[in-house]
Amino acid sequence: MIKRMGILTSGGDAPGMNAAIRAAVLTAAAHNIDVIGFRHGFNGLLEDDQQTLLPQHVQHIIQHGGTVLKSARCKALHTDAGARQAAEALHRLQLDALLIIGGDGSFRGALAIAQHYRGQIIGVPGTIDNDVDGTDFTIGFATAIDTALDAIDKIRDTADAFERIFLVELMGRHSGYIALSAGIAAGAEQIICPEFGTLQANELKALIKPIQHAQLLRGKSSYIIVVAENSYPGGTTALAEALSTALGIECRACILGHIQRGGSPVGADRILATKLAAYAVEQLVNGAHLMMAGEVNQQAALYPLAQTGERKKQIDPYLVRWQQQIASD
Amino acid sequence: MIKRMGILTSGGDAPGMNAAIRAAVLTAAAHNIDVIGFRHGFNGLLEDDQQTLLPQHVQHIIQHGGTVLKSARCKALHTDAGARQAAEALHRLQLDALLIIGGDGSFRGALAIAQHYRGQIIGVPGTIDNDVDGTDFTIGFATAIDTALDAIDKIRDTADAFERIFLVELMGRHSGYIALSAGIAAGAEQIICPEFGTLQANELKALIKPIQHAQLLRGKSSYIIVVAENSYPGGTTALAEALSTALGIECRACILGHIQRGGSPVGADRILATKLAAYAVEQLVNGAHLMMAGEVNQQAALYPLAQTGERKKQIDPYLVRWQQQIASD
Amino acid sequence: MIKRMGILTSGGDAPGMNAAIRAAVLTAAAHNIDVIGFRHGFNGLLEDDQQTLLPQHVQHIIQHGGTVLKSARCKALHTDAGARQAAEALHRLQLDALLIIGGDGSFRGALAIAQHYRGQIIGVPGTIDNDVDGTDFTIGFATAIDTALDAIDKIRDTADAFERIFLVELMGRHSGYIALSAGIAAGAEQIICPEFGTLQANELKALIKPIQHAQLLRGKSSYIIVVAENSYPGGTTALAEALSTALGIECRACILGHIQRGGSPVGADRILATKLAAYAVEQLVNGAHLMMAGEVNQQAALYPLAQTGERKKQIDPYLVRWQQQIASD
Amino acid sequence: MIKRMGILTSGGDAPGMNAAIRAAVLTAAAHNIDVIGFRHGFNGLLEDDQQTLLPQHVQHIIQHGGTVLKSARCKALHTDAGARQAAEALHRLQLDALLIIGGDGSFRGALAIAQHYRGQIIGVPGTIDNDVDGTDFTIGFATAIDTALDAIDKIRDTADAFERIFLVELMGRHSGYIALSAGIAAGAEQIICPEFGTLQANELKALIKPIQHAQLLRGKSSYIIVVAENSYPGGTTALAEALSTALGIECRACILGHIQRGGSPVGADRILATKLAAYAVEQLVNGAHLMMAGEVNQQAALYPLAQTGERKKQIDPYLVRWQQQIASD
Repeated sequence: MIKRMGILTSGGDAPGMNAAIRAAVLTAAAHNIDVIGFRHGFNGLLEDDQQTLLPQHVQHIIQHGGTVLKSARCKALHTDAGARQAAEALHRLQLDALLIIGGDGSFRGALAIAQHYRGQIIGVPGTIDNDVDGTDFTIGFATAIDTALDAIDKIRDTADAFERIFLVELMGRHSGYIALSAGIAAGAEQIICPEFGTLQANELKALIKPIQHAQLLRGKSSYIIVVAENSYPGGTTALAEALSTALGIECRACILGHIQRGGSPVGADRILATKLAAYAVEQLVNGAHLMMAGEVNQQAALYPLAQTGERKKQIDPYLVRWQQQIASD
Repeated sequence: MIKRMGILTSGGDAPGMNAAIRAAVLTAAAHNIDVIGFRHGFNGLLEDDQQTLLPQHVQHIIQHGGTVLKSARCKALHTDAGARQAAEALHRLQLDALLIIGGDGSFRGALAIAQHYRGQIIGVPGTIDNDVDGTDFTIGFATAIDTALDAIDKIRDTADAFERIFLVELMGRHSGYIALSAGIAAGAEQIICPEFGTLQANELKALIKPIQHAQLLRGKSSYIIVVAENSYPGGTTALAEALSTALGIECRACILGHIQRGGSPVGADRILATKLAAYAVEQLVNGAHLMMAGEVNQQAALYPLAQTGERKKQIDPYLVRWQQQIASD
Repeated sequence: MIKRMGILTSGGDAPGMNAAIRAAVLTAAAHNIDVIGFRHGFNGLLEDDQQTLLPQHVQHIIQHGGTVLKSARCKALHTDAGARQAAEALHRLQLDALLIIGGDGSFRGALAIAQHYRGQIIGVPGTIDNDVDGTDFTIGFATAIDTALDAIDKIRDTADAFERIFLVELMGRHSGYIALSAGIAAGAEQIICPEFGTLQANELKALIKPIQHAQLLRGKSSYIIVVAENSYPGGTTALAEALSTALGIECRACILGHIQRGGSPVGADRILATKLAAYAVEQLVNGAHLMMAGEVNQQAALYPLAQTGERKKQIDPYLVRWQQQIASD
Repeated sequence: MIKRMGILTSGGDAPGMNAAIRAAVLTAAAHNIDVIGFRHGFNGLLEDDQQTLLPQHVQHIIQHGGTVLKSARCKALHTDAGARQAAEALHRLQLDALLIIGGDGSFRGALAIAQHYRGQIIGVPGTIDNDVDGTDFTIGFATAIDTALDAIDKIRDTADAFERIFLVELMGRHSGYIALSAGIAAGAEQIICPEFGTLQANELKALIKPIQHAQLLRGKSSYIIVVAENSYPGGTTALAEALSTALGIECRACILGHIQRGGSPVGADRILATKLAAYAVEQLVNGAHLMMAGEVNQQAALYPLAQTGERKKQIDPYLVRWQQQIASD
């Protein structure tokens, strides 16, 4: 039986983490479970930086970006000593369970602690990158898309006014989820994704041909290429320069950067966060351990924490094909 | 083989209709299909109000709310004579297919035309209400949620400042999708949905008890009740007055109204619209007839147009249960 | 010399009140002045509901709507006994000065307290209505305009799609500032303001003629009339019905209501709030008493608190004339 | 008497340019003046790229960013031959006047044309930089502030979650208007403006001291430095690296770039654009020539076009002083 549980947010912050914290605390209260919130991710465990979380502490945080518990990456957990120390902290605080809101790196930290911890551990997928297996979407992804989209819409305005070519770099180190989704939604003329491999300097032709084709077809016009980060050696600014040279037309790069992490979460993220965190607490009560609470086909479901990083999840092949067909048309 | 097709938007407009028009036109162009757009829904058929749609006509409309083809309801289609006349217009314009973007009322109009029309007919679900079977989400629903949410967040600010009770009425004549989703996302203290039946004047106790409980628990505080339209005889303003009297505290009503239909579509709606309209055109090429292009479990899929109004689709039972448990706690 | 000062927000809340609280606290700290914040406006004085405000308490509140100090109207102040009691509370807490953020009703409360208070009193104009003399703009007005505008833009989308007539009611009980500004900014076809007197039921002709003229000129089209609240006996819904009858076309009413009070303040309001609250504290140090810190011609300036309700300030006559000329054209 | 006039948008596009085009066309129509719109700034004159603009062409463009007339810079105007050719185009089209919406570079182009043109020339200040004399604000500035602010608020979320130092680079090549306004509004801990001269590599101490002071005072915390472009040799990324090295803490740079030019204009910009463009047309009718229509102290007023680049206008000294006092406190 769970009487006391810990909760923390870890890794890159994502809009909706506060909604998840809120739902976890409210659901725990409904099950008469006390909640301790650790600050700065796993560091809060190691440094005894924590606070009791009551329902009144999570009132009206659902609409705020960031995380009231702060987040951090935690190198200490990479050693067995660190994991052992974290487990001891959990024991010392008499916590029967730990709920981690974060991405798959954070879940690996949780697995390390589990080696030494007698309580239950459950994860909730919170990251803008959507690169976690076992859930259709991660908390924060929908907001990041809309933030990126809002920026690209603005760039479209100025690109249109000047009939210019812009390259817009979006986050997503290892996955094209954000780039593909925001690119499709923005009506981007091209999308460059890590799923298609790193672009080489001698492969610019594939980018250039559709640009020239479009200019032939519709005259001068704005042209937007959405680029996932790390798609070109030297970065998107270097790619813009290479394209400028190759085309003889100025191409400009915009690196959206960290604005994609912040902002008030959109409805989809608040609902997902609420559902998954509530479900996670309920499943802890039901005995779940070393699982992640994900949503698959609109249904909350458990998935082994150890398999969340397998990367079997794929960006939508239908949209990939459609975009390539239209762009190359 | 499809050489020419018609397209129209019908019924209440929904954000993302333009994205659907764009994707249909681009996809048709890739299949060498000419597109005729009818204006004002089915009225454009009856009044020969139409235009050729080329890719350049749909450039940069993806981000705009409303519909460039205009929309309307069309009473003339309710008679067989009207349906016959519409079919004749399609024949006269030598259209091999007709694509309708709208809700289930519009699809009934399409079925009426099909009685007299030799070509293919396909539907794409565009309505903010999400009350169409055969698709997890309709185009416009996600945006309507975020529009409602944005308004409730603002009302929360002022409700908090004054520690007041607000009733916020959202659209959704026959379904609680918008109310439930926006209510959960806004952290609303209570949600009143048509799925629970019309509230009777003598049933206010069920609403009042949790309000008094909350005030006991956390002192005076803001309190927001999200109400789907048509939930109370006399409307939400009457409900606010009845609650004010019963509680002895002023309760204010906000009727969000038509702002919920407009606005730039969010990413999710633009992507859904793009996917479904592109898929619809492809399926027309594949011979689909009297079907709707929906998305189920992230996969585009056909669904019989005649069954889209069966209302087997249900608001998320998990969230319903959670909300009731937390609100009544 | 001022060692300790009180601060409160009073009357209808306005976006930017938190920015004003923050600037006042930071500026006071720079002058080594302790700050006590009263909650729920003047009620905090009467009910001893207060807290010390240190710079860390106002970190990162600048972007939030509402007011962390809560607001309220306070009937007790309307009696001399109440004013006396408030003054005594200020004396008991050894406060050398009181800063009130609110509208002209709140300033009248301040003047009542001043009859019995030995310290200094200063006001900062915080209200969305912009109906305070001695300042070009009040804190919250710019945000309210943009909130209203955002809603009207959305209504325009759906009005355009259906080529419908909409009446949008905005706040502003005694002044047309919000209606005129939002109406001009939205490109509203007509604007109805209290400055032109209450519209009578037999005066509808003046509204109808330009509508019919516009329909003649440009065919059916969306048509938006912005209406300041209290412009028509029975309200805007009654006006919409009267117009529907007179025109034989359905006219719809949208009452924006309390969403106009909330929301994250726009840049202009945060800057104005920062400037005026900082200036107010500095002027307290300089000995100011019974004054309001306003901004005139981009310059911070003091204005007698007793004259802020004279209503000499006028809505922009140039825009009024232009709108009427264009609308009637 | 003016029977026909030309209009164009030139230089960097700014939100509100469409509102200005609309107001000019509507006002011209009210004065029975025909309007020709040139595309791509002055290039439209030289390349005969123009169209008649009727009231129906400018319906519902008030809310859109960019410019429907497109914009461009025009090198050809730098030669006397180019200016002569432009004037001839105006004569050939029998235009009695030309209205230019742009910044002070565009006005210099207008002055060059005036050497050879027999008609009247008037300017309307449209640029996000607010660096034009003769007007308190330029069209587009208010929107750029809010776009920048929205981004900084988002960065604050993630900076807070990680308690990180961020440098946010804003536009404003020669002026600190955007940086100061957005910085104040965002509650930025520091603001670096061109008005204070270019920062030298050996002057980092002045930046570092307040950071260390703040960390001492309030512990680790988010810290945001707003930087106007061109403030540091090598750019803001180089500055972030230099600070990282000096502080031993990672400092991250975000370059907002072109998103600051786009977006739906806020109310203030739409109103200003409407007022100035309407006023400009009226003043052309009154005989104005070689003037700019600006707004000073809320009053529309003419200002000699030849003096708009004198840069006598200063960023708000009160806010500069306040920011420096608080930041260094």
